Amino acid sequence: MASSPDSFKIGIAGLGTVGVGVVKILQQNQDLIAARAGRSIEIVTIAAKDQSKDRGVDLSTYEWADDLLSLAQNTDIDCLVECIGGDDGIVKETVQSALENGKDVVTANKALLAKHGVSFSKIAEENNCALLYEAAVAGGIPIIKTLREGLAANEINSVFGILNGTCNYILTTMEKTGRDFDDVLKEAQDLGYAEADPSFDIDGIDAAHKLVLLAGLAFGVEPDFDALEISGIRSITAHDIKAAKELGYTIKLLGITKHINDQYIQTLEPCLVPSYSAIAQVDDAYNAVMTDGDFVEQTMMQGKGAGEGPTASSIVADLIDLAKGYKPHAFGQTSAKLKKVEWQNNEELECPCYLHLVVKDEPGVLAEITSRLSELNISIDSLLQHGHEEDGSARIIIMTQTAPFKTTSESVKSVEGLDCVLDKPTLLRIEEV
Amino acid sequence: MASSPDSFKIGIAGLGTVGVGVVKILQQNQDLIAARAGRSIEIVTIAAKDQSKDRGVDLSTYEWADDLLSLAQNTDIDCLVECIGGDDGIVKETVQSALENGKDVVTANKALLAKHGVSFSKIAEENNCALLYEAAVAGGIPIIKTLREGLAANEINSVFGILNGTCNYILTTMEKTGRDFDDVLKEAQDLGYAEADPSFDIDGIDAAHKLVLLAGLAFGVEPDFDALEISGIRSITAHDIKAAKELGYTIKLLGITKHINDQYIQTLEPCLVPSYSAIAQVDDAYNAVMTDGDFVEQTMMQGKGAGEGPTASSIVADLIDLAKGYKPHAFGQTSAKLKKVEWQNNEELECPCYLHLVVKDEPGVLAEITSRLSELNISIDSLLQHGHEEDGSARIIIMTQTAPFKTTSESVKSVEGLDCVLDKPTLLRIEEV
Repeated sequence: MASSPDSFKIGIAGLGTVGVGVVKILQQNQDLIAARAGRSIEIVTIAAKDQSKDRGVDLSTYEWADDLLSLAQNTDIDCLVECIGGDDGIVKETVQSALENGKDVVTANKALLAKHGVSFSKIAEENNCALLYEAAVAGGIPIIKTLREGLAANEINSVFGILNGTCNYILTTMEKTGRDFDDVLKEAQDLGYAEADPSFDIDGIDAAHKLVLLAGLAFGVEPDFDALEISGIRSITAHDIKAAKELGYTIKLLGITKHINDQYIQTLEPCLVPSYSAIAQVDDAYNAVMTDGDFVEQTMMQGKGAGEGPTASSIVADLIDLAKGYKPHAFGQTSAKLKKVEWQNNEELECPCYLHLVVKDEPGVLAEITSRLSELNISIDSLLQHGHEEDGSARIIIMTQTAPFKTTSESVKSVEGLDCVLDKPTLLRIEEV
Repeated sequence: MASSPDSFKIGIAGLGTVGVGVVKILQQNQDLIAARAGRSIEIVTIAAKDQSKDRGVDLSTYEWADDLLSLAQNTDIDCLVECIGGDDGIVKETVQSALENGKDVVTANKALLAKHGVSFSKIAEENNCALLYEAAVAGGIPIIKTLREGLAANEINSVFGILNGTCNYILTTMEKTGRDFDDVLKEAQDLGYAEADPSFDIDGIDAAHKLVLLAGLAFGVEPDFDALEISGIRSITAHDIKAAKELGYTIKLLGITKHINDQYIQTLEPCLVPSYSAIAQVDDAYNAVMTDGDFVEQTMMQGKGAGEGPTASSIVADLIDLAKGYKPHAFGQTSAKLKKVEWQNNEELECPCYLHLVVKDEPGVLAEITSRLSELNISIDSLLQHGHEEDGSARIIIMTQTAPFKTTSESVKSVEGLDCVLDKPTLLRIEEV
């Protein structure tokens, strides 16, 4: 294919699901994309480990780059599309080299950006190019553009996100079927919704990468992944989900970041949200992000958070912006203006809590626990006692009244030490969104 | 206030709720707006009927324009913010004059744009300026930017919107309380949620203006308000809402536009949607827009659809884009590329329907109606008979199976002619979103 002098020329590094999705959109929708971008977007060069593999898409008119660095430095391209993954090594070098050579970079790589986003955005500014990453957070949902531009008139107070489709699928299926975590995880793995090593998803790492990027954009601060405390969903049982439901709540793995007074808070943890709330209705593999701004108030976006089509849709949206000559700053303002803040974790939040205790099924146990909580100044809002197990244990579910989470959390550690408490308690925060 | 040479200078025409909201945001968030825009946004001149009225905001540092046209032509401003309303006369002249003088225009005026959007966008292109209108559709929800940019990689298949907060508030309240339309409308008027003359909202005109703008953007076509058939919510009764709920549905006033095969369809009407669907959960004065794109699939955004803060948030977002030097085309591509299409209405859609008949409470009536429907090839999916009224009438609720709406609609006209049918039937489409 002869290269057109005024087209926007790209090189794609990585031809897995996402890279192939980008090729498919650019081929299938080329006319409407050209109309919207004001010129055509042209794939000039590609790179992937295996050149011979059949990827179900015609790659015959594109040049294969010799290696990633030569692709990044190819003088024929305006933009590098990075679809490889990984937060260091050759991928980092490739992205950095492209930016240093004045090429725009579009990526879905949340891990890379959570770690190097600020330094990369500085390099982009020095070289008059852009670093865009709509696809890195919540797949097809244009939440990066929404925070960076659509809500830019607002001081953002908070962002809540369901940011990992695998976790949301597991929690939703547990709620719908009453089955336990391990069982549903195994099914999700069999169906290909979860990886063979599911840790990255279910321990919250993937969602955490996305959360720190949202926090950076929302508040105009440097993302700080290392400052984030992360809890995944491994410890959530069918009992918890059932008890929460009885009490009018749904358990969701939430990324939460808030700017309250002069405190910046970020936390990634399973929380109870009211079952009637919009965010509780977001089921299966869907993602959602709810924002609160001082003038716009609450808005929420939801959609597919992963997969070939949605992720590639976001990458190509970034490419269209760049082809139009629109090159926004990675975090919505110059990197020099981004504040470096001290992050607090969920201990600073005031909230009611859900406490699940497995105790000896004996007279006096309930009195012992409630009086200990009372001594510790934890007020009980409601209490459920669940059945009597064959092993001589019983389950107590307590909803505490609003208190600093730090206080509730420390009190629960003290209750955990009681002889009548048989297992590690489950303590979850309630977010009355 | 001394004018800064590199600030983005605006004039605001109209200081009602929205205009005052814009002033408040620009004052209160001026530092963060300047950081995001890369320069400050400065109000230079303002115009409103009454200069002496206390609007609860300090206007003392702004010049008052002598009249709207002199504001539009003021050589000191880069952009006109139109917050007056009305689709013709001096408002039209003012906007046109600003564009002809190469000034960007930002407006929340959906009626003006539904009528003159295409001709204005041509004038904007000829004069290298922009016409932006995020605030015109769904208040604080950045759905214009989302369709124009965030989802720009996709061929859009359909857009569904809850686009009028007053109607959604009325329908939600009817569902929650079981009260009838007139009663809830009166309350909404007393509370200030509905106008003294509510026709613009409840007859669907306001939502219809918004829908045609969404259709234009989604499909790259010229909006055509005159081709849109509009049904409002006046005829929806408490009985309908209750029966729909029993059957697992919620009634929403929906703006719907679809591009199926080579047909373009737009319709604004109350429909039944499954109660579990995301769009059914959007309550009270909230707005929501659900889109379906060929790669991104379904996404939905929801938020406040009106009010000072949300509407002004969208206007200022447009101003920030412009201050950055980003001037997108009004309908996402040059006006010359917008297709002029022939619009179809809901008759072209295939759908199940909800039919509510008030009939004589006599033996044989049910058989007469069902056999007539059967003769007309309308298959019944389910049927409810509701109580016996004191006046000797009974209510029959029928859910029909999927058929072209035109066929079902014509059949119902025939049933309407039966002696046993006492009142005009209510026929609503079911959208299985």
